[in-house]
Parts: sequence; C-alpha cells; structure tokens
Amino acid sequence: MREPLNRLSATRLAQMIAAGDVTSEVVTRSFIDAIHDRNASIEAFAWFEADRALETARELDRLIANDRRRGPLHGVPVAVKDNIDTADMPTGYGSPIFATHKPNIDAACVGLLKDAGGFVIGKTVTAELANFTPGPTRNPHNPAHTPGGSSSGSAAAVAAHFAPLALGTQTAGSVIRPAAFCGVFAYKPSPRLVPRCGVKPNSDTMDEVGAFARSVEDLALVASVLALKPAWKDVPAQYLASGAAPTIGWTATPHANAASASMLATLESSAQKLVQRGARHTEITWPRVFDGLFDAQKTVQVYETARALAAEYTYRRDLLSARLVDLIDQGRAVDTRTYIEALQLGRACAAAIDGLFGAAEVVLCPSAPGDAPRGLGSTGDPIFNRPWHLIGCPALNIPCGRGEAGLPLGLQVIARPGDDAKLLAAGAWIEAKLKD
Amino acid sequence: MREPLNRLSATRLAQMIAAGDVTSEVVTRSFIDAIHDRNASIEAFAWFEADRALETARELDRLIANDRRRGPLHGVPVAVKDNIDTADMPTGYGSPIFATHKPNIDAACVGLLKDAGGFVIGKTVTAELANFTPGPTRNPHNPAHTPGGSSSGSAAAVAAHFAPLALGTQTAGSVIRPAAFCGVFAYKPSPRLVPRCGVKPNSDTMDEVGAFARSVEDLALVASVLALKPAWKDVPAQYLASGAAPTIGWTATPHANAASASMLATLESSAQKLVQRGARHTEITWPRVFDGLFDAQKTVQVYETARALAAEYTYRRDLLSARLVDLIDQGRAVDTRTYIEALQLGRACAAAIDGLFGAAEVVLCPSAPGDAPRGLGSTGDPIFNRPWHLIGCPALNIPCGRGEAGLPLGLQVIARPGDDAKLLAAGAWIEAKLKD
Repeated sequence: MREPLNRLSATRLAQMIAAGDVTSEVVTRSFIDAIHDRNASIEAFAWFEADRALETARELDRLIANDRRRGPLHGVPVAVKDNIDTADMPTGYGSPIFATHKPNIDAACVGLLKDAGGFVIGKTVTAELANFTPGPTRNPHNPAHTPGGSSSGSAAAVAAHFAPLALGTQTAGSVIRPAAFCGVFAYKPSPRLVPRCGVKPNSDTMDEVGAFARSVEDLALVASVLALKPAWKDVPAQYLASGAAPTIGWTATPHANAASASMLATLESSAQKLVQRGARHTEITWPRVFDGLFDAQKTVQVYETARALAAEYTYRRDLLSARLVDLIDQGRAVDTRTYIEALQLGRACAAAIDGLFGAAEVVLCPSAPGDAPRGLGSTGDPIFNRPWHLIGCPALNIPCGRGEAGLPLGLQVIARPGDDAKLLAAGAWIEAKLKD
Repeated sequence: MREPLNRLSATRLAQMIAAGDVTSEVVTRSFIDAIHDRNASIEAFAWFEADRALETARELDRLIANDRRRGPLHGVPVAVKDNIDTADMPTGYGSPIFATHKPNIDAACVGLLKDAGGFVIGKTVTAELANFTPGPTRNPHNPAHTPGGSSSGSAAAVAAHFAPLALGTQTAGSVIRPAAFCGVFAYKPSPRLVPRCGVKPNSDTMDEVGAFARSVEDLALVASVLALKPAWKDVPAQYLASGAAPTIGWTATPHANAASASMLATLESSAQKLVQRGARHTEITWPRVFDGLFDAQKTVQVYETARALAAEYTYRRDLLSARLVDLIDQGRAVDTRTYIEALQLGRACAAAIDGLFGAAEVVLCPSAPGDAPRGLGSTGDPIFNRPWHLIGCPALNIPCGRGEAGLPLGLQVIARPGDDAKLLAAGAWIEAKLKD
C-alpha cells in the first residue's frame, strides 16, 4: 500500500507537483483530511478554512498547468504561526488584544514562501504574544502533555501531519523546544538570515523566524526560500553524497542537572553511535566567559519585551495575562547597565565561540530537559536553548529516542553563528546515521 | 510682547502645563494656528485633524485638573512620522499600498510617549516606505528646496513650529539630514535604545527611531521618555551647571570632497569657536579599518530592505516607485557573503572606535554636504551619515550657520556607541557656546 500523501516530505511533494504526478489540490486534501480527523483533539490552528486552502491549491494548479511554476515550493501547503502577519487571514498574535487584527500585508517571510509557490494552509496557535502563557494546543503524542511553546501549533501541526512544513519564531527556545516535545525536525537560523518584518516583536535582539519539518532535507528546502539562498536546498543531498563525516562534540551543558536521566543517556548513546558511524569526535569544555549566558539571555528578553509591548502594557493591561504583566514588570525593573552588560556577554561569547567549539563543526546537546511535561499550564523550560540563542548560534532539533513519559526526546545540534550551511549538512548526516 | 506659545520649548511647555500656568488645549491651539497658517505651503502632515488634537488636549487637561499628571510630557503635542503605527490615526507608510492601513495598536515608542502624557498631534509625511522617493513636503525656509528625508514632515513640522517635538526614523541619514536641511535639532540614538516595535521595517540591523526638537534640552526630555531613562532629562542642565567642557575632535571625514565650501568653513569656524570657549581639542585621524564603511552601510541597507519588503515586491510591485523597485533589485543582487562582510566591517569599526575618537568624547563633522538642495525630486545625500550609522554611533544635529543657498547648515555631533548621555551633555554645551 502506498504511503498517504500527507506522510510524504515537502521535497517529495514539491517534486511530484512539479512533475504533474499529483495536483496541489489532491495533496492539500490529504492534509485537510488529517486536520478533520484529529484537530479537534489537538487544536493546532488558530485559524483554518478548508475551502480557502483548496481554492488556493487549485489556483496554483492552474499556474502549473500553464507552465508558470513559481518556485521550489510550488503547491506545497505551509502552516504559519499566528504571530506572523498574513493579509488574507486573521492574525491574532495569541492575544485578545489582537482578536480582530487584519494586517495590511503579509510578513516578509510569508511573501518569500508565496513567491516560491508555497501557500498558507492555516494559522497555528501561538502562546500569548509568543511569550509563555499557553494556548489550547495539545501534544499530538499524548493530549495530556504540552506541545511546548511558544510555536505550539506549528510543532503540533507538523507532528500530526496537518502540514509538511510550518513556520514559527524563537526568542529563547520557542522553535527548538516544541519541536523536541512534538518529535519533529526544526531549524532556528542565525540572526537576521530570515527577514522578521511582519512578525510581532518581543525581543528586538533575539526574535527569529524558524521552521518545522519532518527531515533536515525539508528544512534546507524551506530555509533556501526564507533566506533567499537557493544553494541551501541541495546542501543535505550533496553532503550525504560526498561521503564526508562531520567533526562533532557533545555536552550536557553546565545545566546538565536540569536534564532527565533518559535525555542524558540519549545524548550519550546517540553521540557514541555517530562516532561509531564515522563522525570525528572532539571534547567540549565550557570557557569561563560563557558563565552567565543563561541569565544574560533572560535579562535581554525581559528588558526588550517590556519595551516592545509598551503600548499593550500602557492601555490594554487588562487583556494581558498576569504572567506576561509580571514578565513586563520584571523587564521594566532591569536597569540599562545590566541590560547592556548582558548584550556584551552575548557578543563576547560569539567572539570566543572557537574556544567552546574547538575542532567541532557542530555541538550536540539536549533540546529540552526531557520529553514534554504533563499538563497544559506551562510550555516547558527553555534552559537548554537560552544560552545558544543569545550567542546567535543556529540550531536544529533532531528527534531521537523517548523520555520517561514515553514521549519524543530531541537532540539539539548547534553550529557557530553564520555556519547555517554547515549545520544543515551535518544535521542531514546525523539524521541519516541515527536511523541506520 | 510675550513669545507665542508655539515658539516655546517642549520642556518649558511641559513645566507650564504641570504648574497650571497654561492648559494643553491653549498650547495645542497655538500649534494648530501655525498649521492653519502655513501647512498648505509646507505639507508636513500626512494626516492632521485639529478637532481631534484639541479633544485629546482637553482630556489631558482634565487629568491634570484631577491631579493625575501622567508624566514629563503631560499635555505636550508630538508630531509622529507616518511610518510609525498609531491605532487611532491612519498610518500610510508613505505608500499607496498602505493607503487604508489602520494599525491595531500604537508603536511602542508612541505608547511610551502617551504613557508620559504626550499625545500625537498628527502624522507627518515620510518618503515612500521611509526610503528615497519624496512625499510632497517642502522646506519651511524655502519651499523650492527639499526638506530632506525620509523624515521630511517631522523635520519640517518642528521647523515651522507646528509641534515642539517630532519622532522620525533613520536607516542611513533620515533623521540627521532633514534636521540639518530644516534647521532644527535632532537626535538619533544608539542601536536599540528606543524600541522599534510598530515601525515599518526596512533594514533590521539599522532602522532606529529618533527625535526632532528645537534644543538639546528638549531632545534629552523626549529621549528620557523613549528610552525609559528618566535621568537623561536632566543631563543637559546638570552638565551646563557643572562648568565642565567636553573634549572634542572634528573632521570633514574621508568624504570632505562632497561637502560645500560653506559647510567646511562652518565646521572649522564652529570648532575653533568651541575651543576658544574652553573645549579641549584632539586631532581625529581615520584608521584604515574604517575604509569602506560607506559602501558597507549601503550594502546592508539594500540587502535588508530587499528582504523586509519581500511581500510588497512580490504582490504590489505596481504600487512601488521605480526608484524603490530598483533599490530592491540591487538588494536581491547582493550575495550573502558580501552582506555578511559588510556587517562584520561595521562591527570591526565599532570595536575599533577608540582608534578614531582617541581622547575625544564627541566628534564634530558635517550633517549633510551643505544646505538643502533645490528641487523636491530628491531628499539629498546621506553620505555624511551612513558610516556612523552602520557603526551604531548616536548622533545629534545642531543647526549652525547658513549655506550657499542661504538655508540652514547642520553640525553633526557623534559619540561612541552607547555614549548617549555623554552626547546629550556635550551637545547641550556645544549648543550654548555656539550661541554665545
């Protein structure tokens, strides 16, 4: 029996649509069927209309029929986090303040997706203003557990086969952590590689657009579109074909005591397996300058979020959650010297990154403390994401093993800032070898 | 005869309103009278309604009457550039694409103004999407000349006494240059000191919110509100009272050949005058690492603008000016390596800033090549702003002398990145001594 269309990769679907083997409409219907089957229990979407998606798919099919393929995502549906502006769909930012918000134009990243022939199948649930107060989304692997956040709906949508690709955003760990909890692949790029215009801001220094998929190859495809770097699409295939193996290091980080036993064991056994498969290994030690990165990331985030949400805090405080008001109050209490020192520590660590990586091309560490915590009241802890994020390291989540609750674990793969192509290449190799 | 209210400083007006010596309504009426007199020939506003402004002023007067003063700008009208979101006024971004745009909430900087008791008297004309295609605004000193841009209306509004304060934005020279051409004071802060949430993005690395006023003291007042740094309000007065004098350097920059004879003579004579008044003097020489900053700034700007405006370029290209389409095409043609090298040069120069400043606390140089060029087809050349802007130096414009066309010239005062308090202190001293 053939695999259902909604289980195929975005790369494969785009190829089939381009070759005329299947229409975007038929592909889209397959995802819609899954949404109709399971979304009532998962609640991945803040907005979804099947008819609209099918109509758009048919328009794209007409273009293909007239030999007017737009680009490498032609006909492929993409789920988009609801803190990212879409002009033809409501954009609620996960906040009652924006319940009736209709942006005038798409976010730049959505423009790039559409320019490449992709289309938005629906808007996915975000935690309140992409902070920490969860929406209704449940973990597709177990509805009693959080999907993580703040890109809760995007991670869940890809995990539940509601879309082959999804966009999210990360300020601390909002892409990598939900991907780990939902057992899907994800990519958080180096700073400013993907334009942020039209994404509701929190932390001007750290907000980034990222992507969810079910393979590194698919992440490279969407990354090539979002960063306008066509060659990236082929990076995984070329690297795998080259027969090369990456030099890796691994570390439970200075926060190892926050990780579950299964997470630590999975990190160790996966890394050992990669070495057995040919990866060169180098020891990772944390230079002293990296001490304090976790706290510094928190400082930058609360300071900047307090300022970015000045209007909401001033006139609509009654519509903010108590948790977010508390975070803004924390941010207002941080003095500017502390904030500037926190930024400086991030820059110092970026400058000293070779002292941590040494010979390693990528570093492996936990994506999250363990598998998804039980309950929907919290989206989990970004403790393993914050330090890398402040430095500006690009990151992947690679699903790997199961945790104490029987839910997916995630391996975080980190590269030096700007080494996104190397990250995607090494990530594809790691994905392949862990499956061996 | 008493000076008309609309000629008084924002600091003075705020004090008078707080003391009950005058109402915000009466103050606002004085600005409205000036607008009715002269705006037809200047066209500073993209949106203005006298009744709305008076209604808001009366609301603020009722708060004062009930002893509920909001903050240091209570009752003071502020003109706001129309690329900055306002929820209760149209926000057209200087583009027909956004002719009907109604933001859902104010930009963070507007929220901070209102939280301090200020209010928006009107939205000022911006060049198209804060780039280079001018709006209708004319120079208040001579309507045949450009007011500069892209913050054309904000500079003109303060020059014409339509408002005591105005907000603008700068990516290359869009605050300092129009301030110079219109003969008003302006402040472009260090990166990220003022939140950018709700400002239509162009260059994510370089877009900054700045302010226009008629004195450095007023700039310090508005800066204290925008950066949530209350102490800044008193920096100019404290510095002047201290009797200290700054250490200054001056330079016509490596682009001296672009400056008019009167601009070069004004720079030299003003600097000499400051030394005679007690400033310590240090020689400025340009380290070699600063070569290429001008080109690097352009590269970063076009690369990032091309990406930020991806949606406009993809679906609404017919509503963009040919000039902006050309700039986006230039940006799409820049390869990522060139862009990253340009960013790295900016960072290297920021790290090497002491090599340029030496003992100087602030550096003086031209704000623009000369006075405002004749004609409204171009907003002038940001050649003297681009290099500093990429480094992240805060800047002031201090009006000083007249150029070949008899229009105002501007002296640009530059400090090291993050030295905004020092810049405001030295700027107040320079303003006072040049008037002596």
